[in-house]
Amino acid sequence: MYTIDLNSDMGESFGAYKLGGDEKLIQYVTTANVACGWHAGDPVVMDTVVRMAKERGVMVGAHPGYPDLMGFGRRKMVLSFQEVKNYVRYQIGALAAFTKSYGMRLNHVAPHGAMGNQCQYDEEISTAIVEAVLEFDKELIIYYCAGAVLGEIAESRGLRTASEIFADRAYMDDLSLVPRKMEGAMITDEEIAIARCIRMVKEGKVTSISGKELAIRGDTLCVHGDGPKALEFVEKIRTAFVQEGIEIKPL
Amino acid sequence: MYTIDLNSDMGESFGAYKLGGDEKLIQYVTTANVACGWHAGDPVVMDTVVRMAKERGVMVGAHPGYPDLMGFGRRKMVLSFQEVKNYVRYQIGALAAFTKSYGMRLNHVAPHGAMGNQCQYDEEISTAIVEAVLEFDKELIIYYCAGAVLGEIAESRGLRTASEIFADRAYMDDLSLVPRKMEGAMITDEEIAIARCIRMVKEGKVTSISGKELAIRGDTLCVHGDGPKALEFVEKIRTAFVQEGIEIKPL
Amino acid sequence: MYTIDLNSDMGESFGAYKLGGDEKLIQYVTTANVACGWHAGDPVVMDTVVRMAKERGVMVGAHPGYPDLMGFGRRKMVLSFQEVKNYVRYQIGALAAFTKSYGMRLNHVAPHGAMGNQCQYDEEISTAIVEAVLEFDKELIIYYCAGAVLGEIAESRGLRTASEIFADRAYMDDLSLVPRKMEGAMITDEEIAIARCIRMVKEGKVTSISGKELAIRGDTLCVHGDGPKALEFVEKIRTAFVQEGIEIKPL
Amino acid sequence: MYTIDLNSDMGESFGAYKLGGDEKLIQYVTTANVACGWHAGDPVVMDTVVRMAKERGVMVGAHPGYPDLMGFGRRKMVLSFQEVKNYVRYQIGALAAFTKSYGMRLNHVAPHGAMGNQCQYDEEISTAIVEAVLEFDKELIIYYCAGAVLGEIAESRGLRTASEIFADRAYMDDLSLVPRKMEGAMITDEEIAIARCIRMVKEGKVTSISGKELAIRGDTLCVHGDGPKALEFVEKIRTAFVQEGIEIKPL
Repeated sequence: MYTIDLNSDMGESFGAYKLGGDEKLIQYVTTANVACGWHAGDPVVMDTVVRMAKERGVMVGAHPGYPDLMGFGRRKMVLSFQEVKNYVRYQIGALAAFTKSYGMRLNHVAPHGAMGNQCQYDEEISTAIVEAVLEFDKELIIYYCAGAVLGEIAESRGLRTASEIFADRAYMDDLSLVPRKMEGAMITDEEIAIARCIRMVKEGKVTSISGKELAIRGDTLCVHGDGPKALEFVEKIRTAFVQEGIEIKPL
Repeated sequence: MYTIDLNSDMGESFGAYKLGGDEKLIQYVTTANVACGWHAGDPVVMDTVVRMAKERGVMVGAHPGYPDLMGFGRRKMVLSFQEVKNYVRYQIGALAAFTKSYGMRLNHVAPHGAMGNQCQYDEEISTAIVEAVLEFDKELIIYYCAGAVLGEIAESRGLRTASEIFADRAYMDDLSLVPRKMEGAMITDEEIAIARCIRMVKEGKVTSISGKELAIRGDTLCVHGDGPKALEFVEKIRTAFVQEGIEIKPL
Repeated sequence: MYTIDLNSDMGESFGAYKLGGDEKLIQYVTTANVACGWHAGDPVVMDTVVRMAKERGVMVGAHPGYPDLMGFGRRKMVLSFQEVKNYVRYQIGALAAFTKSYGMRLNHVAPHGAMGNQCQYDEEISTAIVEAVLEFDKELIIYYCAGAVLGEIAESRGLRTASEIFADRAYMDDLSLVPRKMEGAMITDEEIAIARCIRMVKEGKVTSISGKELAIRGDTLCVHGDGPKALEFVEKIRTAFVQEGIEIKPL
Repeated sequence: MYTIDLNSDMGESFGAYKLGGDEKLIQYVTTANVACGWHAGDPVVMDTVVRMAKERGVMVGAHPGYPDLMGFGRRKMVLSFQEVKNYVRYQIGALAAFTKSYGMRLNHVAPHGAMGNQCQYDEEISTAIVEAVLEFDKELIIYYCAGAVLGEIAESRGLRTASEIFADRAYMDDLSLVPRKMEGAMITDEEIAIARCIRMVKEGKVTSISGKELAIRGDTLCVHGDGPKALEFVEKIRTAFVQEGIEIKPL
């Protein structure tokens, strides 16, 4: 029996600024990665998204990022081990206040943007995140991009992990995502994208941009909700999973 | 048997900016009100002060403030009920990540600066804070300035409270603090300040600036650590409490 | 010969957050009030909007606000005279760097949100703004809401002013805007809104919500660009002005 | 005839946070690099330091940094060309509002912290800064660390430059500063430090940490004011310059 978790980044609005279609998207996912007020999100937004998740039975995870609202946490910053560890700890705790207030458990931690990208190779940053999680709550699941060193470090320290895959992105030979500027980075054909997803989940395999067969573990699929077309695609992929006997549920 | 808690604001440094003498002051207090990164403090500072508190057996409380680092949370902002409630919730949770990581319990919540001042009379803000605390953890103690409506609302909702008194400040007839700009606002004579404190704790009485005898409840005394003179005064007041049979300990 | 300036708030996007339809709206206005990075806007956004204004021949003014991005500058903050003066000075200078770089003159200063609202009655805040402008550049025009004390103070100190009117808002008897929560605050009938505008410009009169005839000076009309309907309305009002012999141009 | 400019970073306080001894230090320098509110400084602080500079006849330059108050602008951030250019433009303009208001000319631009360090080798960042300055005011002088690519690019584009040297820092063979963590990074012997300075100014030479003789241009010496010892050293070095016939004055 195959299973897949559907996750999405949520709670990215800030004050008067609205971003993403959380109200719609939450109907399609099993877990939400909620921004914690540093690269996006604010406490009123966090309250709203956690309450919606509670009503829908969606699991909530923390989506910590760099202290860079102006850059949406997408710009690399060179921080020390203690800075990363404490910044992550702070953000997890801030979000946990909302889940606790609504009688929910925090489910996972998924680093955002530049911080998440650096977890592909950077052992120091990955270890800082893992230590922050371990000391706060050993039950939290670490979400990492398939192939990232963060996954190995989290597992070596006894944390549960979820390997995240993408429907619309091509992979390099080392399982890192093909940079958006490179040709072929995006899988634009929906049928191909869906077939790739199903193969990743059922066979644990994906073909890299260079044509190489790679082993890949797909526990959770990242979906987006910007615009009606994106939601339609999520619906299609949900239908395909069900037809293929892949159960959609959180870990 | 009389008891008094000695509290102080701590963790108010931010990045390269150092404020207060936490390392010294923590040797003299029984509870620390720790800034949560909004009006002051940052996650690395929070980590340091919580670890110090753990080592010293000092209880840790959250000191939430307005989102106004440039004004140190001392400037009044007109926020909605939902904003205050969620801002307080966020900050409590952020600090609780550190106490939880160090195996400590969060002890109390003490609103800072302009937010704290508004709790003297403002029922809406006080209720927002009380609801944030109730939904997060019913065991938390609310620290309020003696006479503040925050204390009444917290008690009416079943929360434990601590009435905070000041050694160096004069009181108006309604127990609010004499504004700093008014003559006589500060009690500068140390002997008088100490005698007033002891009377507040043992007799539950204080003489207002107009000469009126007021009933006052003193559960916790706020002390400061800026400079060697301030620390000397804390030492003197500790000695006086012991001589008067007042035990210094957290609630 | 009658003339009217059409102004709009612009440059309110921030990082990944998009707000307003500057690209469209700039085709309909004669002046732009550009956010300066405190309540909204960032340097990249400022650069873009100033360049667009240059290309379109639209005049640029500074739209300074409170240091409250999370509240979009709409929340009242209690600041000192020196704080308001220097915050305004800073923001004017920041924007002037962009106009200067594009070989443009800064045209005006229009306080935003809560700061703007307080200029209706608050002489201290109004004076702080006027002094900031006077010391920076005596040629700048002060935009103020019709009836605001800011206008009087600016004129008494020798600055040129523009009295701003609104097409879609009702007026109280003292020319302040009817608060949005009150019934009748918004003029929703487009024909009535346009007729009111024309009367304000040509006759200098408006009927208050209580039915009183008020004298009003209308030098500049504030228009919005959120959504296609808003733009259609701006087009209608432009057509009406032309038909009525009111020339649309900056002061 | 030899001349040297003495510069120092100033205006680094922020709100309630005090940093540096600007009041004392300004008596010893000929130019001040004033923080512009991003990595340090706020508009009230900027107003105070510019007014002091005016009273003392000290020249004022902008000290722009990364948008990272929590890291004091010392942490590398990976920004685009347009981001660096517009961030610098914004900060120069903000400070220029204060110099203009006090009837002063802005004298120079000296990038701070991580941004300054990256100008040692990074042509893209250096070009972004140079373009921001060129478009704003061609008369501004670019301060760069001796050997930095920023100096070459500024000169190639027609800007005046000042090569900055340090009394207390050792140099690598490529004129970059020896990293603080390396042994020998700091020149702690005051006599040696002063002799090195004089040689840099008069002979244009310095001995690197590996013993190599390097050509170096010293137009401006960076001095610090943290603590009475630092000020004493500035006094000593001023005396030595005068004895050696080196005139202390801005460029």
